Amino acid sequence: MLEDSVKLFKAQLEKLRVYNHAMGVMQYDMETVMPSGAAALVGDTLGALSEAVYLLQTDAAFVEATKAILSQPDAVDAVTLCEAKRMDEARERVACIPMEEYIAYQIEATAASNAWRKAKNENDFASFLPHLEKMIDYTRRFALYYKPDAPVYDTLLDEYEKGMTVETLDAFFREVRAALVPLIEKIQKQGRQPDTSFLYKFYPKAEQRKLTEYLMNVMRLPKEHTVCGEVEHPFTTNFTKADVRITTHYYENAVHSSMYSVIHEAGHATYELNVGDELARGPLGTGVSMGVHESQSRFFENIIGRSEPFIETVYPKLKELFPEQLNGVSAHDFYLAVNMAEPSLIRTEADELTYALHIMVRYELEKKLFDGTLQPCDLPAAWNGMYREYLGIDVPDDTQGVLQDSHWSGGAFGYFPSYALGSAYGAQLLKRMEKEIDVWGFVKAQNLQPIIDWLTEHIYKYGASIDPKPLMEAAFGAPFDPKYFTDYLTEKFTGLYNL
Amino acid sequence: MLEDSVKLFKAQLEKLRVYNHAMGVMQYDMETVMPSGAAALVGDTLGALSEAVYLLQTDAAFVEATKAILSQPDAVDAVTLCEAKRMDEARERVACIPMEEYIAYQIEATAASNAWRKAKNENDFASFLPHLEKMIDYTRRFALYYKPDAPVYDTLLDEYEKGMTVETLDAFFREVRAALVPLIEKIQKQGRQPDTSFLYKFYPKAEQRKLTEYLMNVMRLPKEHTVCGEVEHPFTTNFTKADVRITTHYYENAVHSSMYSVIHEAGHATYELNVGDELARGPLGTGVSMGVHESQSRFFENIIGRSEPFIETVYPKLKELFPEQLNGVSAHDFYLAVNMAEPSLIRTEADELTYALHIMVRYELEKKLFDGTLQPCDLPAAWNGMYREYLGIDVPDDTQGVLQDSHWSGGAFGYFPSYALGSAYGAQLLKRMEKEIDVWGFVKAQNLQPIIDWLTEHIYKYGASIDPKPLMEAAFGAPFDPKYFTDYLTEKFTGLYNL
Repeated sequence: MLEDSVKLFKAQLEKLRVYNHAMGVMQYDMETVMPSGAAALVGDTLGALSEAVYLLQTDAAFVEATKAILSQPDAVDAVTLCEAKRMDEARERVACIPMEEYIAYQIEATAASNAWRKAKNENDFASFLPHLEKMIDYTRRFALYYKPDAPVYDTLLDEYEKGMTVETLDAFFREVRAALVPLIEKIQKQGRQPDTSFLYKFYPKAEQRKLTEYLMNVMRLPKEHTVCGEVEHPFTTNFTKADVRITTHYYENAVHSSMYSVIHEAGHATYELNVGDELARGPLGTGVSMGVHESQSRFFENIIGRSEPFIETVYPKLKELFPEQLNGVSAHDFYLAVNMAEPSLIRTEADELTYALHIMVRYELEKKLFDGTLQPCDLPAAWNGMYREYLGIDVPDDTQGVLQDSHWSGGAFGYFPSYALGSAYGAQLLKRMEKEIDVWGFVKAQNLQPIIDWLTEHIYKYGASIDPKPLMEAAFGAPFDPKYFTDYLTEKFTGLYNL
Repeated sequence: MLEDSVKLFKAQLEKLRVYNHAMGVMQYDMETVMPSGAAALVGDTLGALSEAVYLLQTDAAFVEATKAILSQPDAVDAVTLCEAKRMDEARERVACIPMEEYIAYQIEATAASNAWRKAKNENDFASFLPHLEKMIDYTRRFALYYKPDAPVYDTLLDEYEKGMTVETLDAFFREVRAALVPLIEKIQKQGRQPDTSFLYKFYPKAEQRKLTEYLMNVMRLPKEHTVCGEVEHPFTTNFTKADVRITTHYYENAVHSSMYSVIHEAGHATYELNVGDELARGPLGTGVSMGVHESQSRFFENIIGRSEPFIETVYPKLKELFPEQLNGVSAHDFYLAVNMAEPSLIRTEADELTYALHIMVRYELEKKLFDGTLQPCDLPAAWNGMYREYLGIDVPDDTQGVLQDSHWSGGAFGYFPSYALGSAYGAQLLKRMEKEIDVWGFVKAQNLQPIIDWLTEHIYKYGASIDPKPLMEAAFGAPFDPKYFTDYLTEKFTGLYNL
């Protein structure tokens, strides 16, 4: 009896894997290869496949099998039980949405994504606005179907980081802001900035591709399971640990852009590649939350990748690939340049210190969009106002302003705080790791494997089988405390700027 | 009542489109992007999607709706009626195969494809042999399920070119061989060959990519609906006319290889891009047969692309991209070089004249494989023997011999004759076209649009709604006659070699 339920449950999970695999490949293809004129077609196909996923997730026999497993927790193995819990949660989020709305949303998400890409290219917020309005409307409606009595934005935050609320994040950002704003002011007041001009020389794409290949090796990404595509806005996607794709965007006049996006995405990929084999094909075979995911990408990008010992080990390769561009530039000069702290326009290219301010802008705007105090049509003005207030800079156009990120076009509202949380998680992880292994000794030897092994042992191998809070507390050996993050930044930037 | 049948029928066609779209994108991704370690995973996913397709095709309600439409031919529109006929035929081919075998075959096809790629790279026929044996075995079994009393190879030929039989092809190849062999001998006896050394200089991939872009423009492929990927063995795939993908392979020591593969694949793409809008989303919205398809690809590759007027118009671009490599080489020299007729090892790089001999080798071997007079393990020896007999050359290894083509690994037995048939169709089409429009005037003006328009009017717009034989006879204005092909080649090569 229970055996039959488990069999049916597992068979249905495999079907879900199949549809998600197909949809994932189609989405990757859409971003990397597909000709633009096929957008409507792929929208229809993804819509129909979403319908199949919806039907599988809410299928009565599947729900019954899931419940049967949950009702006999001692009679099944731990993995199956945990899979049943996850599927039950996922179903609750989805089953409350009428199917037609769910599919219409999927189709609109594809249309909105394509409209955003065009609007960003053409600096035309107005053409994106109707899509944005629809995405916000769907998102709000779906959140209320799921939790009619909860504040909408809390429901959204919880989707990307289970248990996260506005209350917790307000406190977190307050503490971060209190520490960072005076530090940033100090740097601006003392007036000295490193030379960064060499970063903006001409760096041909072909050579940058070789740098990507090198960095993927340094990051220990296995060639048989990882590729790097070229896209407008870099991301990572995975179809079980057998196929993990990273992406980047090459700017020929800014070598550090792709360099650090590759390390960032390689951090995401490393997480996915090291999930436990016994979880790999099921719903637990992936990262547990966006906060934990971003903790890995930003750990490798910033804490490791922007450290002086790391830069010293990769610098010979940079000199080999770009001898003219880096003529007379030392590893230390490069280290100073890629760590220059200065308020800027573009989040993905912001330095480690001012980055959190970019997130705060988005967090505040999202809060207002969902408590109804800000209309989507007023977003550009609000965006520009907050960049002035938080970062002290003027936004020249929407392409470099409110249209810069892809997230909202894909319906990812409540995602941005994960980046700041992830950064903070990473700093606390570092402290713990330093107590147990010789982190900087390994970095100096360009041997990242023991660091990846430590993270695998404490985080990766669990996939999505442990909720983010207990997972991270066990890895920290303590409750989460943003002080590690503010201390880390204060120490690093005090040193960099001799404050 | 009939209205309900039509509605159900159309809804099911759309579902089939969705699955085929997803599978097509995954297959394209597998060939162009996917890391090798994901082969088993994608095999499982494609297997499961094939199962869904099988179930849709053979679904009782769908079959009933199809029969209802077929039983009232005057009560439905012509497109729907024709779609019902095609779906009924397709179902007959599939429904006779037990589902488990059908799915096992799909999974094996993916495994065989990947095994072939590896075996070709490593010149290791033995590692491919078990896969090849399985593919042959499945193919034979499926043909016998479908037509237990027909010769297996006739059933296979019919799949790629409806109505084609061994009897017809034997007669066709006899006529072709009778004309070409003496012509090839004449050329070899007179002993002069053009200089081709400049084709084999170093042609960097980056510049070849620019040539591809240029040729895609010359061929009038719309950027919004076409892209070119890079693969081991070039092919074209389409997901309705909104998304038609061509592919190529760049050899940095052979500029004409990718150049002519791009024109060839662009010919396939042109066909797909110009199917009638009213057919586009359904089963008729694609080329009708492989013979007709190859007639288009080989028409553009050889009859147009290897003509002197065409080469004269693209040559300035070649000189611009490769000034050093083509220093001192005239358009006429280039024309002579890319038309050098000489028996060679690789089918895809064979000249227009000896090409048919490569096909005859494969045709003879396939006949023997399926009448049981040749065992798969004996293929390399048989292959090498026939290359000696038909082309007078020694095959140095299996990579350049029996492993060179992808077709058999994908289960495409009976496909090869389409290439020779297509070449012959093209020559007869040219004669008819020359009577109606100023073909060579347009080529000289590098204006291929009127030629594409003529082909659209006579062939492309009908998609798969008219069977190959009546379609081509109407386009020719006469029955098919291979004499046009042998006359065309005789005239062209007599001129080229001053025979």
